[in-house]
Amino acid sequence: MGNSFGKLFAITSFGESHGRCVGVIIDGCPAGLPITEEDIQREVDKRKPGIGMAATKRMEEDKVEILSGIFDGRTTGAPVCLLIWNKDIDSSEYERIRFLPRPGHADYTAFMKYGGFNDFRGGGRFSGRITATFVMAGAVAKKLLALSSIEVLAYTIEIGGIRAEPKGFDEIRENVVKNPLKCADLRAAEAIAEAIEKAKEEGDSLGGMVEGVALNVPVGLGEPVFDTLDGDLAKALFAIPAVKGV
Amino acid sequence: MGNSFGKLFAITSFGESHGRCVGVIIDGCPAGLPITEEDIQREVDKRKPGIGMAATKRMEEDKVEILSGIFDGRTTGAPVCLLIWNKDIDSSEYERIRFLPRPGHADYTAFMKYGGFNDFRGGGRFSGRITATFVMAGAVAKKLLALSSIEVLAYTIEIGGIRAEPKGFDEIRENVVKNPLKCADLRAAEAIAEAIEKAKEEGDSLGGMVEGVALNVPVGLGEPVFDTLDGDLAKALFAIPAVKGV
Amino acid sequence: MGNSFGKLFAITSFGESHGRCVGVIIDGCPAGLPITEEDIQREVDKRKPGIGMAATKRMEEDKVEILSGIFDGRTTGAPVCLLIWNKDIDSSEYERIRFLPRPGHADYTAFMKYGGFNDFRGGGRFSGRITATFVMAGAVAKKLLALSSIEVLAYTIEIGGIRAEPKGFDEIRENVVKNPLKCADLRAAEAIAEAIEKAKEEGDSLGGMVEGVALNVPVGLGEPVFDTLDGDLAKALFAIPAVKGV
Amino acid sequence: MGNSFGKLFAITSFGESHGRCVGVIIDGCPAGLPITEEDIQREVDKRKPGIGMAATKRMEEDKVEILSGIFDGRTTGAPVCLLIWNKDIDSSEYERIRFLPRPGHADYTAFMKYGGFNDFRGGGRFSGRITATFVMAGAVAKKLLALSSIEVLAYTIEIGGIRAEPKGFDEIRENVVKNPLKCADLRAAEAIAEAIEKAKEEGDSLGGMVEGVALNVPVGLGEPVFDTLDGDLAKALFAIPAVKGV
Repeated sequence: MGNSFGKLFAITSFGESHGRCVGVIIDGCPAGLPITEEDIQREVDKRKPGIGMAATKRMEEDKVEILSGIFDGRTTGAPVCLLIWNKDIDSSEYERIRFLPRPGHADYTAFMKYGGFNDFRGGGRFSGRITATFVMAGAVAKKLLALSSIEVLAYTIEIGGIRAEPKGFDEIRENVVKNPLKCADLRAAEAIAEAIEKAKEEGDSLGGMVEGVALNVPVGLGEPVFDTLDGDLAKALFAIPAVKGV
Repeated sequence: MGNSFGKLFAITSFGESHGRCVGVIIDGCPAGLPITEEDIQREVDKRKPGIGMAATKRMEEDKVEILSGIFDGRTTGAPVCLLIWNKDIDSSEYERIRFLPRPGHADYTAFMKYGGFNDFRGGGRFSGRITATFVMAGAVAKKLLALSSIEVLAYTIEIGGIRAEPKGFDEIRENVVKNPLKCADLRAAEAIAEAIEKAKEEGDSLGGMVEGVALNVPVGLGEPVFDTLDGDLAKALFAIPAVKGV
Repeated sequence: MGNSFGKLFAITSFGESHGRCVGVIIDGCPAGLPITEEDIQREVDKRKPGIGMAATKRMEEDKVEILSGIFDGRTTGAPVCLLIWNKDIDSSEYERIRFLPRPGHADYTAFMKYGGFNDFRGGGRFSGRITATFVMAGAVAKKLLALSSIEVLAYTIEIGGIRAEPKGFDEIRENVVKNPLKCADLRAAEAIAEAIEKAKEEGDSLGGMVEGVALNVPVGLGEPVFDTLDGDLAKALFAIPAVKGV
Repeated sequence: MGNSFGKLFAITSFGESHGRCVGVIIDGCPAGLPITEEDIQREVDKRKPGIGMAATKRMEEDKVEILSGIFDGRTTGAPVCLLIWNKDIDSSEYERIRFLPRPGHADYTAFMKYGGFNDFRGGGRFSGRITATFVMAGAVAKKLLALSSIEVLAYTIEIGGIRAEPKGFDEIRENVVKNPLKCADLRAAEAIAEAIEKAKEEGDSLGGMVEGVALNVPVGLGEPVFDTLDGDLAKALFAIPAVKGV
């Protein structure tokens, strides 16, 4: 339960870290939107860990496939199914975590909730890899938003206590693509990279803060009193396992 | 929109008649349920048209694949994705229906609703083939119901005005598997088969009536006042394109 | 559970037959729609049993009150709460049905489902009186539809085996308001009235059939594959306790 | 739209600050739960502004009434409607804000979203008064949680930069009821009270931080990947207009 989000543009995520695939269904995307596997691939590729910065060691060669809902290069109004096959998976090292839950992961909770039947390999359904399904759905949403003048951008503003200097939006937009940490400020990015290296040597990791901006949003988005814009954004963001505050 | 059904055991259907595949996601199936591709294949095979009785001429070699949610032969609590790849599809004959809607089909409605972007090949999303996704989800539900003593059976009781004689439930259960029309009464089945042949020669088809029975159902299923048992059953049944009354 | 229906124009019904009130919340009605208590009262008054035809003996003096969502004679975009206070209720005669379920009613099911805590007086939540909440919501929907050219009309076409003769829509529209049975055919209405009287003398009641027509409906209403127009209509209709088929 | 929250214990909020009432429907509360108007009144009374600390100047004499769903002192399984009539309302002073939106309020957004038809008096649907409907629903939920050993407590830990000292949970539980700011630390409470008075004199207000704790929660609450416990909590909290972060 709980693997769907949204009403008019509803997404359903499925798949596991070390199962056959990870995928997503989008139900409600208007017909006629031009979209190709490349459009989605481009966004998924941004997930690839930067050099020397790998959050996880697996070299992911994630190739997006369209399974349904798109015909002759355009959405048809039918549910869009997007999928990435999992490849070159070595699950052997995960056998030992089956009964040894890792701290900061959902291993223990999942074991208890599903009576030990959960797919524990690589964190299974609780792996960060599941966010690839969000990215695929987001790539379609981005194409849709491009029809209006709405622009959405998120970027790192702080990691390990090192904060980005305030910058203008145009500069931020340029900076984000120039550093693997997607930081708004290039000088802060360098300092952060060093701090991460240091933490890594000590067997530690660092938390941080991401800022998201949406431009040209019409007045009155969101529905009071429960389906508010900030409430729905917060709920969506907490679907990312690493998010701890909004 | 509208491709999901259910709350606790929620299914999301996707795919098109002549696209790459038809599939279904089940979200909410409890963890630990033993299920194999064979269990699902068995139910899907029942859809195969009986000899000389083909509702549609395509020889469907429908092979079920489990894409997610099942690990070591049991459900994991994660969404279950089941899929059938479409094979040997010849869509060439459908090019002519692109702008020539067939009577009794959704061709015209789909064209208007989706501004002509719908996948028209073989009826696309409006094909009877989509019911294969219901059958796959139903196969999992059947395994789940088998844990209780609930038994569900549906059978033909009338086609083209020829009615099955009333029979005891045990006899019906046996009869249903003995004739390709799944009729409750073997003698009626023969008469109906003849009537169908005759109608076919005249370029016509016949309507009929199906009766469904659920045994050992606990008191109080369904939720008043809107999510009633009969209301939800009716809604589900109308998802089958050919159903015209409940 | 199950007391809400709809997504964009969502209604939530509450109240009991012999409790303080019956009411309904409409969430999603656009702002600016002119509506008065009289508009809603007019529809509720149509529920009043015709002379000598009372389906139930209680003389209901149902006075509609607007509790929220309407300001200066127009909807505000906030949820609309409409309410009828229950008056002059004599529940004494219902004490005997507390442990003696009536056939054809939900008394037994409700007792079992709610562990005997259900409000049994007058059928409580399972009374036909709950349909007054549907009528109030329908009255608002009707005002909304009046902004388009859509017209919805339902009428009796058969009771106790006596069928209305086929008539033109204009004639039906006139006939319906001329007879207490809302029958499409005035002559059939007379014969039916007699049959009802006769059945009543024998301590029996009669079933029948209602036909509903919607004119000027745009192509493509409803959402495949589950949220179809016929499926949602069927589900809504089964919320009326007396409806047994669609 | 958007005035309902939850699936199994679903609440629908209605009413306006200066309309006839504010109320809430609870759909899904199990039958048999003993609950009285006093139980709910007790929680609503906690909203009453402390002496000399009024967040708003109106002296609210909020009297809870049960309209449906409770019979003989227990829930019946039918939707529970709880209501507070608005009394002694002077809306005259709000006429001037009709076309003069206040900063930090939803006046402008509501005007734009609802085309000027929104009930602007006292903020209408966007008033903090709407949270009284949350409190009523919460009072029922609290009775339900009391059947298990789950305990939920929230308290102020910071206002205007003045932080509560860390305390043990038993001490916090006692402290919270001893000061009008519901602060976990009595000494911080005094300092905060002074800071509020000072800000008030300067025509300003202060932000702060509330911490919520739930004890004895079973493992595995919440549903991955979207209906997570933190995600749903965050969404619910953002329904409180003053909440800006979770």
